[in-house]
Amino acid sequence: MQVLAFDADVRRAAALFLGRAAGVVGADCVFGRNDDRDAYSDALAFDPSLHAPAGAVAAETVEEIQALLRIANECGAPLWPISRGKNFGYGGSAPALRGTVVLDLSRMRRILEIDEKLGYCVVEPGVGFFDLYERLQEMGSPLWLSVPGNAWGSVAGNALERGAGPQPYGDHGAQICGLELVLPDGSLLRTGAGAMANSKTWNVARNAYGPGWDQIFCQSNFGVVTKLGLWLMPAPEATMTMQLSLPQADDLGRGVDMLYPLRQRGLIDHDPAWVSYVGIASFVGPRSQWYEGDGLLPEEIGRRIRSELGIGWWNAELNFYGPEPVIAAKVAVVKAALQHHFPQPLAHTVWRQGDPFANSKAGIPGTRDMTMIGWYGGRGGHIGFSPLLPANGALAGEQFQRTRRRYEAAGIDYYGAFAVGARTIVNINEILYDRDRPEMAKAVPALMSSLIADAAEAGYCEYRTHIEQMDAVAATFDFNDHAMRRLNGRLKDMLDPNGILAPGKQGIWPKRLRPR
Amino acid sequence: MQVLAFDADVRRAAALFLGRAAGVVGADCVFGRNDDRDAYSDALAFDPSLHAPAGAVAAETVEEIQALLRIANECGAPLWPISRGKNFGYGGSAPALRGTVVLDLSRMRRILEIDEKLGYCVVEPGVGFFDLYERLQEMGSPLWLSVPGNAWGSVAGNALERGAGPQPYGDHGAQICGLELVLPDGSLLRTGAGAMANSKTWNVARNAYGPGWDQIFCQSNFGVVTKLGLWLMPAPEATMTMQLSLPQADDLGRGVDMLYPLRQRGLIDHDPAWVSYVGIASFVGPRSQWYEGDGLLPEEIGRRIRSELGIGWWNAELNFYGPEPVIAAKVAVVKAALQHHFPQPLAHTVWRQGDPFANSKAGIPGTRDMTMIGWYGGRGGHIGFSPLLPANGALAGEQFQRTRRRYEAAGIDYYGAFAVGARTIVNINEILYDRDRPEMAKAVPALMSSLIADAAEAGYCEYRTHIEQMDAVAATFDFNDHAMRRLNGRLKDMLDPNGILAPGKQGIWPKRLRPR
Repeated sequence: MQVLAFDADVRRAAALFLGRAAGVVGADCVFGRNDDRDAYSDALAFDPSLHAPAGAVAAETVEEIQALLRIANECGAPLWPISRGKNFGYGGSAPALRGTVVLDLSRMRRILEIDEKLGYCVVEPGVGFFDLYERLQEMGSPLWLSVPGNAWGSVAGNALERGAGPQPYGDHGAQICGLELVLPDGSLLRTGAGAMANSKTWNVARNAYGPGWDQIFCQSNFGVVTKLGLWLMPAPEATMTMQLSLPQADDLGRGVDMLYPLRQRGLIDHDPAWVSYVGIASFVGPRSQWYEGDGLLPEEIGRRIRSELGIGWWNAELNFYGPEPVIAAKVAVVKAALQHHFPQPLAHTVWRQGDPFANSKAGIPGTRDMTMIGWYGGRGGHIGFSPLLPANGALAGEQFQRTRRRYEAAGIDYYGAFAVGARTIVNINEILYDRDRPEMAKAVPALMSSLIADAAEAGYCEYRTHIEQMDAVAATFDFNDHAMRRLNGRLKDMLDPNGILAPGKQGIWPKRLRPR
Repeated sequence: MQVLAFDADVRRAAALFLGRAAGVVGADCVFGRNDDRDAYSDALAFDPSLHAPAGAVAAETVEEIQALLRIANECGAPLWPISRGKNFGYGGSAPALRGTVVLDLSRMRRILEIDEKLGYCVVEPGVGFFDLYERLQEMGSPLWLSVPGNAWGSVAGNALERGAGPQPYGDHGAQICGLELVLPDGSLLRTGAGAMANSKTWNVARNAYGPGWDQIFCQSNFGVVTKLGLWLMPAPEATMTMQLSLPQADDLGRGVDMLYPLRQRGLIDHDPAWVSYVGIASFVGPRSQWYEGDGLLPEEIGRRIRSELGIGWWNAELNFYGPEPVIAAKVAVVKAALQHHFPQPLAHTVWRQGDPFANSKAGIPGTRDMTMIGWYGGRGGHIGFSPLLPANGALAGEQFQRTRRRYEAAGIDYYGAFAVGARTIVNINEILYDRDRPEMAKAVPALMSSLIADAAEAGYCEYRTHIEQMDAVAATFDFNDHAMRRLNGRLKDMLDPNGILAPGKQGIWPKRLRPR
């Protein structure tokens, strides 16, 4: 609704801002043409125009950001900071509010520190997973990254959005330790121990005296992060890997119940994900290589895909990291616990320091997951629906069936992954579609709305969502008449009285743009 | 300074509040006599009168707390919420600001939920470690507590102050998942997934959509926590325990450097602490059993104590938790890594499910650590100095020597513990003294001030501090002219405009009481 009500005001303010921004960053860092607007839109969304930015400005230093925020406050122009703008499935680089100016930080690419002994790095927002990986390789560093499936993006941006990877340090938001940020009024802040000017523990100590602010600046719009401390994992002596597959759709429940107790007991050190077979197939190639027809994938085609790829309906990979005798003992305990679920003896592969790297479990960035957007051919679309569930097989099974029915009613192949943690499941559902098939593209927004409503009715919230659904998801947090939304709004008004920073992000609107 | 400037105003407001509070909680839950004030003072501090409360009010329900906050807002009376008031070494139940009314929540003792499969509990603030332990025992529950050395206190209160135990879940603040609280305006809030009214993941999902507020309500004064979700550890199949000791004071550095890499690699699942020999001795009995003289413990007495107790200058216990083959493999790797530091072959003991419990590693609450306050005889005093260091042996050694010199100059036996984490050290220094020896008691505040100043100069902040030093520690966070203190103050003014909730806690003052 904000999109329409404030269009003219926002456009005027943005034009004013773009005119003045060149004085700070130079004309070559101000992007206000039509093709610039396209470049910063979310090309994977069903209607990119709903969230089209007014343009973009690239900043390279803290001082430039401070100066730009001052001008934005004066003009009343909303700014949408992006790290590298690769928030695929959740909006890419596009803003929640149409007409916002993108504040592009992708040129801030300094890796400020890598501490090999203490296992952390400090990065600027523009540092990508590939940048950091290359630096670690150059150094011959004993640290491993945790990377998301598609690793084109920013290390800091991914952590601030609480991205995830299948590695032990895979809860990326939880690895944050210490932020530097520019608040909307242009003032500079460091969180945690870094609030002490000469701190020696900024990026290692989480429990500094007083309230902890790091997580307030995740998935929010209260400041522009300019430096981020992130914990990295020491490279293990060896890894062992087990592939699991379950043949039936109905097997998800037992798949969850067999894994979460092992995860809780520390016998598995990462959140293994049960991925449905369409997910695996979508990494291999377009669906047309198996089926040229319209409509849902027929049952017999599904069977053929699973058979050809040698996979089950649900598929998971377990990885073990550490000294070989320790992980061999873990693998033996895990096999003993799981074996009765599987007809064949469970096998595992071993990787040792010095062997060539085998797969993404080692934190090597890749972009394999981007292949999936070609599933239907045409100009691929992709949006994520990502609720959190308790680690409970029966409830996971119900959520899967409910979601699958909605996909099928919308005529879209079901693709879900259930990442099983010690106490929760992050249930990532990818909605893949072809933006060139109007009836399909039209079905997506309605599908998303029904999925969010279904989840809320069952008591499940999202962990993250696309810009288009940010208000809808925020509205599901209804305890005490939406007390949390009010609190977030109050903090927003305190820190950003002119409402210039990322209005609408996570459904947090500043006063001047807030829905009545 | 607040103590003096606002004394009269605060006293008047408190008297008014105490008069009206009986209408909410009944006269038998209002405590305003002199002996009540004594009971809620910090009897372990060098001058309890500096932080004497005006009295106390006990509340049993959320509604009573809401009504009391309304009255406090009307009267301008500051309230200091305590869970059970056992914050020993950091102020007990006493408020930062003299004349504040203690809001005693120790009657809120409901254990609202224990989920044995998902490993969490939901408790009210008055639930003690003993209460929770007994409930788990009654249930025959497969969950283990993590308990602090002295476990008289509140489960919720300890977690909110970021207390620690030597168990795998020993970073108690980090186990918090989901809070219910009454904000200073009397409104009710639930954090995280609990912000959804019918949430099924309130106490299991940390990464709910939007900014994370849990840690903002730790070590702060922004709300009264009425329910707290806490993760508990599944009981292991077995444990193995190794005792380590190092003979010389100078050995601390290598003690740290031998442990943190093992902790970082997950071969040790808890933060083992190197405890100086006076600490161990103070658990055994008063110093008079070894030495009757005044002044510092002579070197030869120190040697005799270590010899009699069979301990080193520094002493640590390593515990391993899990299936026996897994922890046996870990123990073997750890022994191989450490053996060259020790003249004797390292030994370990084994505990298996069904064996009688051996020690506090199993999360059995105890009060052994309270013995230490009798070290000097008389009315024992005790205050904690608790800086955070990077996990670095050389730096830990320097910090130890610096601290020890200050203790010795003050004529007090050095007692320090260095809990070695993967990336940090929590360095707990206990200042034990006899409150009946004036020259000793007088030395303590100056000692504390010099320790805080030394640490700040070296770049180390505290993780927690006594009410008497809360402003001094807050002042050490000086990045960008104390940007963090300003931010905390702004949030305080937003949430608590009348400045009624725990003024001065962690150095966060409301506007009306803020130092100029």
